Parts: sequence; structure tokens; C-alpha cells
Amino acid sequence: MAGAISFELLQKDAGGKARRGRLTTPHGMIETPVFMPVGTAATVKAVKPEDVRELGAQIILANTYHLFLRPGHEVVRKAGGLHKFMNWSGPILTDSGGFQVFSLSSINNITEEGVMFASHIDGSRRLLSPEKSIEVQNALGADIIMAFDECVPYPAGREYAAASAARTTRWLARCKAAHLDTDRQALFGIMQGGMYGDLRAESAAQIAALDLPGYAIGGLSVGEPKDVMYGILDDCADLLPQEKPRYLMGVGSPDALFEAVARGVDMFDCVLPTREARHGRAATSLGSVNLRNAAYAEDFSALDPACDCYTCRHYSRSYLRHLIMSKEILGATLVSIHNLAFLCGLMAKMRAAIEEGAFEVLKREFFARYYDG
Amino acid sequence: MAGAISFELLQKDAGGKARRGRLTTPHGMIETPVFMPVGTAATVKAVKPEDVRELGAQIILANTYHLFLRPGHEVVRKAGGLHKFMNWSGPILTDSGGFQVFSLSSINNITEEGVMFASHIDGSRRLLSPEKSIEVQNALGADIIMAFDECVPYPAGREYAAASAARTTRWLARCKAAHLDTDRQALFGIMQGGMYGDLRAESAAQIAALDLPGYAIGGLSVGEPKDVMYGILDDCADLLPQEKPRYLMGVGSPDALFEAVARGVDMFDCVLPTREARHGRAATSLGSVNLRNAAYAEDFSALDPACDCYTCRHYSRSYLRHLIMSKEILGATLVSIHNLAFLCGLMAKMRAAIEEGAFEVLKREFFARYYDG
Repeated sequence: MAGAISFELLQKDAGGKARRGRLTTPHGMIETPVFMPVGTAATVKAVKPEDVRELGAQIILANTYHLFLRPGHEVVRKAGGLHKFMNWSGPILTDSGGFQVFSLSSINNITEEGVMFASHIDGSRRLLSPEKSIEVQNALGADIIMAFDECVPYPAGREYAAASAARTTRWLARCKAAHLDTDRQALFGIMQGGMYGDLRAESAAQIAALDLPGYAIGGLSVGEPKDVMYGILDDCADLLPQEKPRYLMGVGSPDALFEAVARGVDMFDCVLPTREARHGRAATSLGSVNLRNAAYAEDFSALDPACDCYTCRHYSRSYLRHLIMSKEILGATLVSIHNLAFLCGLMAKMRAAIEEGAFEVLKREFFARYYDG
Repeated sequence: MAGAISFELLQKDAGGKARRGRLTTPHGMIETPVFMPVGTAATVKAVKPEDVRELGAQIILANTYHLFLRPGHEVVRKAGGLHKFMNWSGPILTDSGGFQVFSLSSINNITEEGVMFASHIDGSRRLLSPEKSIEVQNALGADIIMAFDECVPYPAGREYAAASAARTTRWLARCKAAHLDTDRQALFGIMQGGMYGDLRAESAAQIAALDLPGYAIGGLSVGEPKDVMYGILDDCADLLPQEKPRYLMGVGSPDALFEAVARGVDMFDCVLPTREARHGRAATSLGSVNLRNAAYAEDFSALDPACDCYTCRHYSRSYLRHLIMSKEILGATLVSIHNLAFLCGLMAKMRAAIEEGAFEVLKREFFARYYDG
């Protein structure tokens, strides 16, 4: 029994830790390193699935917490699963809901059993536990599903971080026991341990022992300075199994993507590209652009002259600014398409650079242009 | 000098007044009767122009009032005109701003010169006059432009309606004088006269004397009972020149479209299909559907089983309801696509029926299914 997914490590960067890989899933192949657009409520906000595919996305992420509450996982199961429900035939990853019960729900009570919380939609009291999260994710039917974990906030004391990481490991064993159809969906474990290198190492060793098809690094990008995050990645990305994909959750700024790939991470997701788009902020090859700036009112050039996405091929900064200022829905759509295309394109450039042994050169050039340009 | 457009009357319904025609414009041909989706601020709300085309739209409408205020017609002129600015290569019609200065601006002062009003965006005082409206519409560059008129509200006394219709005719002469490039843009006149048949007839005769390439029937669908509107159309649609296209402004409910086509009208526009869509209300071959209704939570059939639009081919009522309930932008997009496809498809059915001498049969069958089904 091979399991739902397989990961092939194609190449490592000549001078560093950056990895070039390929993930095979029931719904297609994914070239890594990869950025995964977030489709929280079974839709990448404001973008049709065909457009998500065309802009270069290989896999999208959906949120268990949101879909558990609305429309309910049984509705999605009856619809034939998430792929069919949302008209996306490519690979999907669902998170476990662990992060959202802490960040979105108004009350929560954490016990060894799981987390009781109040729905952010109607206030109803609900339980998410390792078993429940797996049940929900089984119903959703994503190619990759995530263990139910406790995400330690920043800052957190050592004792709390240690106890929480230990619980996440115990919960992981329960998730593994509850997840039966491993040929259809691959379960990833999640490393915790706060900002403590030795706790991270301990967590990594414990979850690696469960021999899962992939591993995530959780509890980063939760408010800590970026240097602290990079330090943790320095210490512990390599403690995860070499032959398994590594997924850094919730990271999607260009600088952090480069720094994490440089430290051996393969997969990323983040809501920023679409959220920023809805506010008129775009990432371009020459740095970030705030379309609300009056300077763009009569700027008839493309949003990013170096980009060949749908938005940059057909529209000017002037028009995009007009849509954003007029609160037109199409503005959110068009800038989201560009921002996602930009990040997916950036990952493609990183993959090509790793293949050519030129990752560090690309990284240096990008930073010079994007941040000092 | 042939002018910007030409209209060919292909066929008349055997037993009635319904007309089958073809309008040739600088940006393509339009088969009539036709429904024109509204793209108020240089975007059909929530729908990409390629999708507007694919759903069957032949021509779209944009609003002079909105574009005059934001981004400003000079911006659009510098962008190369509306077609290029908004990435729509098909025909466009712009209204004159006359209707909106009365319905959207907070203060207005009507003189023979024009209308002083306060912008609904920033309160600034602005003037729209026949000459200014033409100047703005020349800058926007639509294929068909509209005369600047005073839209009489309902109810209105006879004296006011008469004075207003007379002013609209005087303003029309000024619009015609101000519009120079008649080979690039066709100017339509607008009939007014309130709910008074004799005033309508007088207005029709006066504007017909100006020999313009097309004529609109204004001041209907402004709050009067539908029977009153149909009565006016009975009396006066035929008073407009037979060989010119006739455009009924602001009408887009299926019943009114049928009744107006039956009375010899060729062109229509309305914001309803997209506005209703954003609230989760759809028009289908079996009647209207309110997606907020809980009955659709586990309805995995297409929004309209008889429809082959993008939305009906790929999504279920359950998914669309989920998007609407979750206030997801994609919900507005998908239901807008369907509602516009439904109306454009309905007009295509009317055209085919007129060709086959079966318009009254189609009309009867549609009413039975849509309103009593």
C-alpha cells in the first residue's frame, strides 16, 4: 500500500538547503517548492477556479473550521466532496481547524479531549477534537489533510509551549488512528514547540516517529519577529525527514518564502495575496503597489510590466485603481489574480533556479529589486 | 455619410408588432431584440468582460454620470476610450447621465442650461448639460450615445410633464448640434411625456423630425403600474420611425421584456439581473429562485436545469447558496453570470420565435411556466 501521495526529491541546491521536489496526489502532480492559494470557504475569494488554475496554482487550501460550521461537512460529503462541490479538479489540502478555533472563535475551552468553542457565525457551542477534525476532513475529501494541533501563540512561556507541543503529539497519534482511508487522503503531522529550539527538536523527533507522508511546521508567523522565525527554521527544518514534504503554514510574504525555501521548506499557504488584493495592494516585480495612491490615476501601464497574468495582459493600473476606488467587485478579482500569479510565478522561478544551482543568486537579485528598488 | 450605425429590419412577427432586426456598429453587429447588461462604472458588476461575452451579451451599457464623476471622462479619453479602458471590444452604449442626476445626486437645480447637482461621491457641485453630456460621451467613445433628457418622475402633473418633454426636445437639438463625429458614435433621441399619451405622441413627432439613428422611450419603469407602462407603449412605440431601432430604458423583468417586444421595442437595459444576483436571487426557466431559502441547502441540481451557462454547467444550488450565505464574492459572480445568461438567452428565444412567426406562442408558454409554474 503506497498511500495517497508520494514525494520525490528531485534536486538539492548546490550550495544550500533549498529543495526541488515533486508531490504526486490523487488529483495531480505538484512541483515543489509550491505556494498554495487559500480558498477558505471552498472558494479562492473572488476568483473562479478556472482562473485559479490558469494563473499557475497547482493546489489550493480550504479551511476545515469554516466548512464544518458552514455549509457543514455532511453537505459537502453529500455533494460528492470538496473537489466536486467547488468545481476544482486539482489537488486540495485542508487544514485541521486547530488554528481557527483559537484565532476566530470567541470562547474556547481546551481539554485533552479537544476544544469546545463558540461558532463565530451563530455563537453555537461546538467541539473540534482530533477525531472530529479527521471525520470532517474525511467528508471534505482533500488529497492532503492536517493533524488537529494546538497552535501556541507568541509570546508563550516555555512550560506552556512544552505542554502544548506534547499534547499536539498525543493528538497526532489519535488523528492517525482515526484516519483510515490513507490511500485516498494523506495525513500530515504538525511540529510545534513555540520559539524554543529544543522543544521544536523534540516535537520533530516525536512526530517523525509516526512515519506520516508529510510534515508541517506550525506555530510560526504568529506575531514573532521574522529573525526569530528564521532562527527556528535554521534549527529544525532539517530535523524533519529528508524524504517527506515540509510545509510551513501561513507564510506567504516574498521575503519569508525565499528565506524558508533556503532553509529546506517545500510548501506554503497564506491568505495575504487575496486579502491585500481586496484592499488594492499588489505585489509586483518592482515592489509593492498601493493602487489607492493617486499617482496611479493616469498610469496606463500594466500593474506589473514583467508579469504575463490575465490582469497584466488586459488592464492598466489606472483602470484597476478606478475599480478599487469605486469598490467594484471586479477590482478584487483582478488584483487577486495578479497577486496569486505573482507568488505562483515566484515559486516557479525558485524551482528553476534550484535546478540550475542558482537559488542564492535569484534570492539576492529579487531582494535587491523588490525591497530596495 | 452613412453614420456610425445602421439598422436593418429583418422581419416582423406575423400576427403582431414584434420586430426582428440587426444593428451594425463600429464594434460589431447586434441582433435585436436585445438585452444590454449594465456596466455602470465601466464594469459589469462582478463579471469579467470575457465572461460577459461568453454568456451571450452582444452590447453593454455604461453610465455617463458615474464615469464623469469617477474616474473622470478625461482619464478614460487618455486611456484610449472606454472599450480599451475596460477591456471590452464589443459595442457599448452610454446613457446621458440625465436619469442619474435626478435619482442619485442629493441636490439639483434644473435650468434651461442644464442641471447643477452635488456629486454622490464627494458632494462637489457639478453641471451636466446637453453639451457637457455629449462632451463626456464623446470622450468615453461608446458606439451609441444618448441625448441628455429630463426624466419625469411618477406621478407627475400634466403641465410639468408637458414642459419637461418640451425641454427634453430643445435639449435634444442642442445635443445633436454638439455631437460632431456622427461616423464614430450614433446619437439616440429620447421620447418623454410622462404617462400622457398625447404628450408622448407630440414628443415622438418632434424627436423623429430630427432624423436621428435611433430613439429611446424614456420615463417609463419609474414607479408606475405595469399596465400603465404597457398602455403608453401601445399608444406610442409605433409613433417612432419604423426603420430606426427603439430602446426602452431601464426595463429588464422577463414579463416586461415580452410585453415590450410585443409592442415593437428592440433594445433594453436593466441593473436588476446583476443587483438581484448579489442578493442571491436568480431568474430560471421555472421561475425565480431565492438562494437564501433553506430548501436549497442540499439541492445539488443546477440553478436552472434548462440553462447551459457556465454557472449551471459547473455548480449546484447548494454551492451557490453556500457562497451567498457566506457573503463570498464568487457568489455574486456566478449568479450574475446566470441571470445575465438567462435574459440574453430569453431574447435569443424571442428572436428565433419572431423569425418563425411564433412569438405569441413563446410568450404564452413562458408566462405559464415562469409565473404560474
